[in-house]
Amino acid sequence: MRDLTEATATEAVVGQLAGCDNPRLKQVMASLVRHLHAFVRDIEPTDAEWLAAIRFLTATGKMCDDTRQEFILLSDTLGVSTLIELINNRKSPGATETSVLGPFYVEGAPDLPMGASIIRNDATPELRVHGRVHDATGKPIAGAMLDVWQTAPNGMYDVQDPNQPVMNLRGKFTTGADGAYEFLTILPTPYPIPHDGPVGALLTATGRHPWRPAHLHFIVTAPGYRSLTTALYFEDDPYVDSDAVFGVKDALVVRPLPRDGADGLRVCYDFGLERKG
Amino acid sequence: MRDLTEATATEAVVGQLAGCDNPRLKQVMASLVRHLHAFVRDIEPTDAEWLAAIRFLTATGKMCDDTRQEFILLSDTLGVSTLIELINNRKSPGATETSVLGPFYVEGAPDLPMGASIIRNDATPELRVHGRVHDATGKPIAGAMLDVWQTAPNGMYDVQDPNQPVMNLRGKFTTGADGAYEFLTILPTPYPIPHDGPVGALLTATGRHPWRPAHLHFIVTAPGYRSLTTALYFEDDPYVDSDAVFGVKDALVVRPLPRDGADGLRVCYDFGLERKG
Repeated sequence: MRDLTEATATEAVVGQLAGCDNPRLKQVMASLVRHLHAFVRDIEPTDAEWLAAIRFLTATGKMCDDTRQEFILLSDTLGVSTLIELINNRKSPGATETSVLGPFYVEGAPDLPMGASIIRNDATPELRVHGRVHDATGKPIAGAMLDVWQTAPNGMYDVQDPNQPVMNLRGKFTTGADGAYEFLTILPTPYPIPHDGPVGALLTATGRHPWRPAHLHFIVTAPGYRSLTTALYFEDDPYVDSDAVFGVKDALVVRPLPRDGADGLRVCYDFGLERKG
Repeated sequence: MRDLTEATATEAVVGQLAGCDNPRLKQVMASLVRHLHAFVRDIEPTDAEWLAAIRFLTATGKMCDDTRQEFILLSDTLGVSTLIELINNRKSPGATETSVLGPFYVEGAPDLPMGASIIRNDATPELRVHGRVHDATGKPIAGAMLDVWQTAPNGMYDVQDPNQPVMNLRGKFTTGADGAYEFLTILPTPYPIPHDGPVGALLTATGRHPWRPAHLHFIVTAPGYRSLTTALYFEDDPYVDSDAVFGVKDALVVRPLPRDGADGLRVCYDFGLERKG
């Protein structure tokens, strides 16, 4: 290891992992060293650029607290979270695509009767969301539970906003024999990810915006099937092609239609679940 | 960007940098995204592994304060600091190799007469360090300044240790017409990098130790020449082949010799400087 040159440095570092008795950790660290060194060799950072990176990472750590996870924001905005989600949710045909869970899911949303509104304040329902839960062959799944949540018109979830009732715009619905679901709600709203920290500064410096397109979150579960975490996006949303956290997928973009015999819009979407194992 | 799949995710993220008006930042971020995604594709992290990485980075940031820079330790222990130093200090033949500056350099060491001791307490000099400063052709450089510093026998630098006099084991020496330098000191001691934080835990988990081999630090400067930051290491040191921060290079390893006509040892080393520009 003394013979450290530009040519030998990477494998010299990997060689120091010889005594690691955790095979997975050893594999991860060797890969990290090789990819990190390849990055350094590619860009050849100046000392000042290296120090700027050290300071950025330090500030990102300092920004984290009980309610703010700046490194997750960094992972999200670099597309790392989405890439890992894609890798860990390879789908068979007929199964619905996944999307990022996000930090605003909470357990314990109220069980509601099919067709009910998830609005807990005096807002007027303006959107009917409906469809079916089916298996990979298109057969309806009875007893599937849809856990849904979304933002209020101010771009905030109930847990961020003391002016919203608890569990506003959250609910759980369980399908019957036909696999059908429906509920009433308001239209969700685009919102920026927290951008007053180092990640927001990086987005600005790289000519990016912090906005997520409006979306409806879903976790769909049913006995014997893999849990599905996903979201629906809207075709006419100004940010649907530039989601700051890369959550949008083509198959999850819906076009709201006029409601027959009622004011407002409707969205029809069927969820396909994969069998476990 | 809606058509986000495992195959398209990386270039979709790079594509969002189209609006970045800083060409160097755009280049760095595009390279970062590509290498980071290649790492993710290589190891296919589970959600739990991803969360462990987020937590590690967060804890590393939290560990940093005015006197502790845990991200620099991380960079050092992954060989990134040394690789960048190698890249930014490509040498012509005849010029001495560089080594890491480390966090313990301080400005304002006392100017001492050639041959003086850098010991400021009652320790007995046991090492004579001497040699010449020359240019790439071997011609002596007059007026070269050597700024030297090292640890005490307890493994600590004066700035870490209230029991050492200020500027203990630090000094500056300026060469005459012959380019020769010499000073007296004690033998430096191996010491561990700070290892009570996340980086220390990572070293332990990967079967590595936190020790640096004993060394003498030098910054050698002369008008018209590039500044040289380097260190000398000792051939019989137990850590010379496994420096936790990868600072050792073959050409910087010395073998102490007996002193003629005096107790103790001597080290003879010539420093070669490169002309500026």
